[in-house]
Amino acid sequence: MPELQVSIVGGSGYTGGELLRLLLFHPAVRIKQVTSERFAGKPVSRVHPNLRSVTRLKFCSVEELDPCDVLFLCLPHGQAMHRLPYFRQRAERIIDLSGDFRLRDPEAYPVWYGTPHPHPEWLSQFVYGIPEIHREAMRGARYISSAGCNATAVILALYPLYREGLVDPSRTVVEVKGGSSEGGNTPSEASHHPERNDAVRSYKPTRHRHIAEIEQELGLSGEHTVHLSATALGIVRGIMATAHVFLTRPLDEKAIWQVYRRYYGQEPFIRIVKERQGIYRFPEPKILIGSNYCDIGFERDPRSNRLVVISALDNLMKGAAGQAVQAMNIMLGLEETTALQFPGLHPV
Amino acid sequence: MPELQVSIVGGSGYTGGELLRLLLFHPAVRIKQVTSERFAGKPVSRVHPNLRSVTRLKFCSVEELDPCDVLFLCLPHGQAMHRLPYFRQRAERIIDLSGDFRLRDPEAYPVWYGTPHPHPEWLSQFVYGIPEIHREAMRGARYISSAGCNATAVILALYPLYREGLVDPSRTVVEVKGGSSEGGNTPSEASHHPERNDAVRSYKPTRHRHIAEIEQELGLSGEHTVHLSATALGIVRGIMATAHVFLTRPLDEKAIWQVYRRYYGQEPFIRIVKERQGIYRFPEPKILIGSNYCDIGFERDPRSNRLVVISALDNLMKGAAGQAVQAMNIMLGLEETTALQFPGLHPV
Amino acid sequence: MPELQVSIVGGSGYTGGELLRLLLFHPAVRIKQVTSERFAGKPVSRVHPNLRSVTRLKFCSVEELDPCDVLFLCLPHGQAMHRLPYFRQRAERIIDLSGDFRLRDPEAYPVWYGTPHPHPEWLSQFVYGIPEIHREAMRGARYISSAGCNATAVILALYPLYREGLVDPSRTVVEVKGGSSEGGNTPSEASHHPERNDAVRSYKPTRHRHIAEIEQELGLSGEHTVHLSATALGIVRGIMATAHVFLTRPLDEKAIWQVYRRYYGQEPFIRIVKERQGIYRFPEPKILIGSNYCDIGFERDPRSNRLVVISALDNLMKGAAGQAVQAMNIMLGLEETTALQFPGLHPV
Amino acid sequence: MPELQVSIVGGSGYTGGELLRLLLFHPAVRIKQVTSERFAGKPVSRVHPNLRSVTRLKFCSVEELDPCDVLFLCLPHGQAMHRLPYFRQRAERIIDLSGDFRLRDPEAYPVWYGTPHPHPEWLSQFVYGIPEIHREAMRGARYISSAGCNATAVILALYPLYREGLVDPSRTVVEVKGGSSEGGNTPSEASHHPERNDAVRSYKPTRHRHIAEIEQELGLSGEHTVHLSATALGIVRGIMATAHVFLTRPLDEKAIWQVYRRYYGQEPFIRIVKERQGIYRFPEPKILIGSNYCDIGFERDPRSNRLVVISALDNLMKGAAGQAVQAMNIMLGLEETTALQFPGLHPV
Repeated sequence: MPELQVSIVGGSGYTGGELLRLLLFHPAVRIKQVTSERFAGKPVSRVHPNLRSVTRLKFCSVEELDPCDVLFLCLPHGQAMHRLPYFRQRAERIIDLSGDFRLRDPEAYPVWYGTPHPHPEWLSQFVYGIPEIHREAMRGARYISSAGCNATAVILALYPLYREGLVDPSRTVVEVKGGSSEGGNTPSEASHHPERNDAVRSYKPTRHRHIAEIEQELGLSGEHTVHLSATALGIVRGIMATAHVFLTRPLDEKAIWQVYRRYYGQEPFIRIVKERQGIYRFPEPKILIGSNYCDIGFERDPRSNRLVVISALDNLMKGAAGQAVQAMNIMLGLEETTALQFPGLHPV
Repeated sequence: MPELQVSIVGGSGYTGGELLRLLLFHPAVRIKQVTSERFAGKPVSRVHPNLRSVTRLKFCSVEELDPCDVLFLCLPHGQAMHRLPYFRQRAERIIDLSGDFRLRDPEAYPVWYGTPHPHPEWLSQFVYGIPEIHREAMRGARYISSAGCNATAVILALYPLYREGLVDPSRTVVEVKGGSSEGGNTPSEASHHPERNDAVRSYKPTRHRHIAEIEQELGLSGEHTVHLSATALGIVRGIMATAHVFLTRPLDEKAIWQVYRRYYGQEPFIRIVKERQGIYRFPEPKILIGSNYCDIGFERDPRSNRLVVISALDNLMKGAAGQAVQAMNIMLGLEETTALQFPGLHPV
Repeated sequence: MPELQVSIVGGSGYTGGELLRLLLFHPAVRIKQVTSERFAGKPVSRVHPNLRSVTRLKFCSVEELDPCDVLFLCLPHGQAMHRLPYFRQRAERIIDLSGDFRLRDPEAYPVWYGTPHPHPEWLSQFVYGIPEIHREAMRGARYISSAGCNATAVILALYPLYREGLVDPSRTVVEVKGGSSEGGNTPSEASHHPERNDAVRSYKPTRHRHIAEIEQELGLSGEHTVHLSATALGIVRGIMATAHVFLTRPLDEKAIWQVYRRYYGQEPFIRIVKERQGIYRFPEPKILIGSNYCDIGFERDPRSNRLVVISALDNLMKGAAGQAVQAMNIMLGLEETTALQFPGLHPV
Repeated sequence: MPELQVSIVGGSGYTGGELLRLLLFHPAVRIKQVTSERFAGKPVSRVHPNLRSVTRLKFCSVEELDPCDVLFLCLPHGQAMHRLPYFRQRAERIIDLSGDFRLRDPEAYPVWYGTPHPHPEWLSQFVYGIPEIHREAMRGARYISSAGCNATAVILALYPLYREGLVDPSRTVVEVKGGSSEGGNTPSEASHHPERNDAVRSYKPTRHRHIAEIEQELGLSGEHTVHLSATALGIVRGIMATAHVFLTRPLDEKAIWQVYRRYYGQEPFIRIVKERQGIYRFPEPKILIGSNYCDIGFERDPRSNRLVVISALDNLMKGAAGQAVQAMNIMLGLEETTALQFPGLHPV
């Protein structure tokens, strides 16, 4: 197979660094360029110290971007939506990791991102980047918009139940708990270690913008929503979503297990985690650090029709760079798990 | 005022140690005895190293217990309910910190604690130990049953709303997140540092036994419950409860504030925390370590009738020993805040 | 006793916040003013959230500073040395918490702080602020320069041995390990949570500026030094110094214990911690959080003449604000332990 | 190349789990059996949850052990030394990860391990398992004794300097700082999360048994030693050694760099880390989690002849399982880096 050339725009952030880590060990691709305006000319290992001696790549400016086969965009929200034509000229295939092309409905941008989308006509050209839901559309696609990290955790947890019409769509409550790497690599008061260490910080009790993606992918009309709150923890990587859904039919755990098995039984990166005993009987983000798995488990409340669904993933992997590489593999017709087989560590 | 003599039964655990720390600096009481079968004869500072040079007290056996004015019982669940007559002979006033006398309904014991209560006739003699709800009954009471740590966080967060009939009682969902000291001082696989560090562990998605106390204090009949899940975090002290309630009337945040002010405005240990900006604009357990505060905040979801109420406390203080000392102060007619004024640390 | 009025200049930092926390509960003083240019006009609880409901004090500008009895200066290094005359006009007694007046030798400033001292004539007017060494000079003193946090840990660990001439002064090696609050409250890449969490960072293998204080207080001439390295850990509060000294005489542990007892046996804030068993048999900073203790322990190496001395303290307490209040108490003839009796927490 | 069959004895511990994680992705070997008496018959993913869906291997009893090509022994200290004949019958090649065959001098066993070695004649048959020092002896070797984790960090840091005779052998002081996974997977009071979290615990100020390996490999006679102390931190994985050596010649940093380059310039798993700026300018264990690197850096003290050498590694990788796989690769003539290329994560 001829080697494919990929480049990364905005490669000095945490997501860019994670993409580099994965793609440097991908047997079918070669990293051609990595851009960073701030670090142009400097080795990528200056900002990604885990890549010392692994690569001698240097950052270049986005102005120097050459044509390539696949381009990953890791820019802050609100930039790619303005500069897409420039990037389209450089690559036939683009995977964008920001929120700029995740929502199909242009009306949603002013609501959730605070400004209208400058090019609503592009939104329909992007496939929403969760392979477990849009794998077919991804094959051969030119543009993929990688999903939000919290959104991925929630959508994967709930998709089979909503798709099967098993839950009361007016009652679902979700709490997502996540680590500090979600916030990117720019220091702030919120990320200052004495303040963030051991924090249990209710940073977005309502109005988290990932709700828009979740509503879109679960097929919720304006009438219903997912009642979501987000809490920041003192960990670095990892997300756990705890979703409380209320069943419309009296299903027992075995029946629920069968639903999940039907949807995810063949999925390489979803594991149904539900054991009778042990401390890892439900999904736990810490053992997923560095891996592309999304683990999903659940428990029925015997006192009501509530079902608690728990999902966990690494926000920089299945929640960002890992899922983007998975999408690239599908897009290019490569083996889907290539470069994504790291199983996670225990203990850690 | 004549000095009162207090003793602690089961003083080698974390709650017993915290009681010691508080009572050693309480100007109106003197600690007479502290029992521990395992450490009888040894200095209390052997197991509570923060008390080195602070006290020369030694543990004694419960068999050696002398009469005293107030007796704190810090035994594991299921012990005090069998041995109450023995303790009653030793002290006129008893504050029990286990779950043995928290539930008024004897039928609830087999459901939540797995065995029938051996002396259901005693249950009505204990006042449930949340001062903000039962202060009047505590004054001069002989027996107080200190509330569960998670239960305290949830009850204090929701009491005014339920009391005022402002929420749909069928829909409330609560997630409590807590630290490892909740589990006591006995090592186990679950508490082994390599496994617990940085954990986000869904340890009780349904059927947490504190639900029974919450239902009791919020006045929920068997028809309704609080849909509660509990998650264990890699912190040592601290609980945060995130409660999602659905309002029966279209109240704005100002109106909700007024409700909380009416109930808690004069409370010495409840702070309504709701600021427009900053990283501590909602309750945060880490700045409550060592303090007796329960901080409560909230946010209205503008897209629905959901109200998110957030409460935080130190599980060993307002969730256990601190609240028990507060109860003792009330019971004895002392200034309620005595020995409980430590404000918490920042940063920490 | 008439109430004394104290003010704090630079009260928005971590040291200023800790001073506030202590002085608000000090029965003999009243806090008159707290300055912060950035937060002038705002409540101190805005930046010190643990003080919510504890005080209604607001920050003012340093320009508005009124006369007071004691003034604490918590400015960044290099400021107080230029503005001392202004502060002297405001208060008869000053306690400076920066490094500006710690070194008696003016020649040391360009070496360790990078610039000459603008007023070398003031240096001799300040008492170096470790009470265990300079208590007599502190009584009635007008100016005290509070010691550095790492310096305090190292000096207290080694002072008796050096004073008694028991160690080879050419061979001492010390490693200090400390938490992130040492770096103050300004966010930076080094303090960014994803980078600092779980860090074991060799940030100053040589040339730590606290060496100058240590040499001064241990009486080391230019010929000898303490070979010190500093490592930053992922904790927030706490310092542990591990000092390796080489004995000039074959002393056993009992003899060494006697030396420490002779020097520190009556000290209210030094505990000799050396037990035969248990996990807290040596000093441990975590149980000192919020307390003013410096715990000191040691172990003789039976294979050589090495003695390992271990000391631990809370860098914001005995390493800064706590020691400053202790100094104030001595300076004013108050009971030395006033407002400093918090014993630390366990577990935490 | 024909596939080689490897088995692991004692596979339920942390080191065994790490070996499994590595060998499952090793293209030249197949894992035949993994023994655990406690978990015989159960899936390995029961105790190593990161391996869920990665393998269906089950534990068997050591009694069921079949012949294989390479046998890894991960038993507690003191067991393999008694049972070696049994294992020798099962495999031609053995890599032992305990301390049972690390010391060439039989006299050292009673001193450091408390009992005489039952088969001193076997000691000379084992190659000490640090490839950077004993690579030639490993090629084709039958028995390898994998080095201690702290010992590896210290030996790799100091070997070039000692080998070149550049340091005063009487003065070296080393402090090793390590995480909780070093202690294995058995819960204890010392590993109980409320006690271990955020700990800075001086657990072995003198007499750490890895000193014996360090003396052996650095060629120290009984006259000289390395003055080592060990401190336990609240991290899970990772070791940092800070070594203070005193130079016998006035070498500058460039000259020292050249020495390290000469010894380690071609080493695939040693990186010399010494940058002018940035927060990762010295070795940092956290970015080595899961990787097989040992990073080494240094700084000259301009005020004396001290050189501070800093090394970092993952105790379960280069300090145990990773180094054992590296040894196996050399032993079998495979590419040395096979299955060991994971570069570590950032941030983490």
